Amino acid sequence: MKGKVSRHMQSATSKAALKRLNYIEGHLGGIRRMIEQDTYCVEVLRQTYAVRRAIEKLEALLLDGHLHTCVIEGVKDGRDEQVIGELLELYELANK
Amino acid sequence: MKGKVSRHMQSATSKAALKRLNYIEGHLGGIRRMIEQDTYCVEVLRQTYAVRRAIEKLEALLLDGHLHTCVIEGVKDGRDEQVIGELLELYELANK
Amino acid sequence: MKGKVSRHMQSATSKAALKRLNYIEGHLGGIRRMIEQDTYCVEVLRQTYAVRRAIEKLEALLLDGHLHTCVIEGVKDGRDEQVIGELLELYELANK
Amino acid sequence: MKGKVSRHMQSATSKAALKRLNYIEGHLGGIRRMIEQDTYCVEVLRQTYAVRRAIEKLEALLLDGHLHTCVIEGVKDGRDEQVIGELLELYELANK
Repeated sequence: MKGKVSRHMQSATSKAALKRLNYIEGHLGGIRRMIEQDTYCVEVLRQTYAVRRAIEKLEALLLDGHLHTCVIEGVKDGRDEQVIGELLELYELANK
Repeated sequence: MKGKVSRHMQSATSKAALKRLNYIEGHLGGIRRMIEQDTYCVEVLRQTYAVRRAIEKLEALLLDGHLHTCVIEGVKDGRDEQVIGELLELYELANK
Repeated sequence: MKGKVSRHMQSATSKAALKRLNYIEGHLGGIRRMIEQDTYCVEVLRQTYAVRRAIEKLEALLLDGHLHTCVIEGVKDGRDEQVIGELLELYELANK
Repeated sequence: MKGKVSRHMQSATSKAALKRLNYIEGHLGGIRRMIEQDTYCVEVLRQTYAVRRAIEKLEALLLDGHLHTCVIEGVKDGRDEQVIGELLELYELANK
């Protein structure tokens, strides 16, 4: 880590994450129009579930990046307890 | 239902739903900035979980409206099987 | 409903539910043995997720029965608010 | 790791896990009796959700143990990709 500007997220991860965010925002825009046009509620709900799935995929992507960078570095730097504590917190949040 | 313009969603429900959508979109905008500014991944993930919770609240709101309108009408019109089938489908999607 | 002993759950539903319970209990017994024999944690966790899925299937079965009996009867008896309130409570519990 | 018989799960973790399993099995026995006695479906479902929560707590316990032992050892032994791959698999299973 010496002398280098370390980034939390690798460039590929953040690019992929921003692409997913675009998709999610477009999807939400579609849901907005459905509600404004009084689309049948069941159809709107089907779309909100699809957005939830898309957010879970974004999370998996971010977690993948996090494990490959900050977690590995943390363990190698002897900060085991910190990185494990954070992973358990995230796991609990994901299941709440 | 004859002669009346029936809406799927009551005005109060759709107003509340659009307000929640605004909130979710604002939250996603915040996540976008966090990713662009290379915020620590754990902090970004905490925010994506908060968005998931917000979407679940939007879903609960839409489901509440759906039960009070389309489901009740459907049962009273003898379309039990249709409305039950849709509810079970939504339940499964919510748990996937 | 007059003069008949009404059951909450139809016989077919409760039979299927008890069968699923047997399966879940057997699966948990397998997990117990895995833990006692110090099986690799990842393998144990894969099995606990399978149990969660099995419980969700049991819930879908119970909900299906509930919608076809108590909910339909409730709406037809004018107890809309009660049955809707219960469904929303269950939905929230399922997502917690 | 030299010369010592390594266990996947520490004794404290497996004891706590077995205790949780006892609790879950007792809870399932209660659900069985409720179904046999034709308890109101909503009440049965409230209990199945409680069992799901209990299983999630068991999983958090197992994951905690896994992170503190196998994951740390794996990273220190240079098996990063294997342990990360497993964690991502578990995360996906937990969200399915």
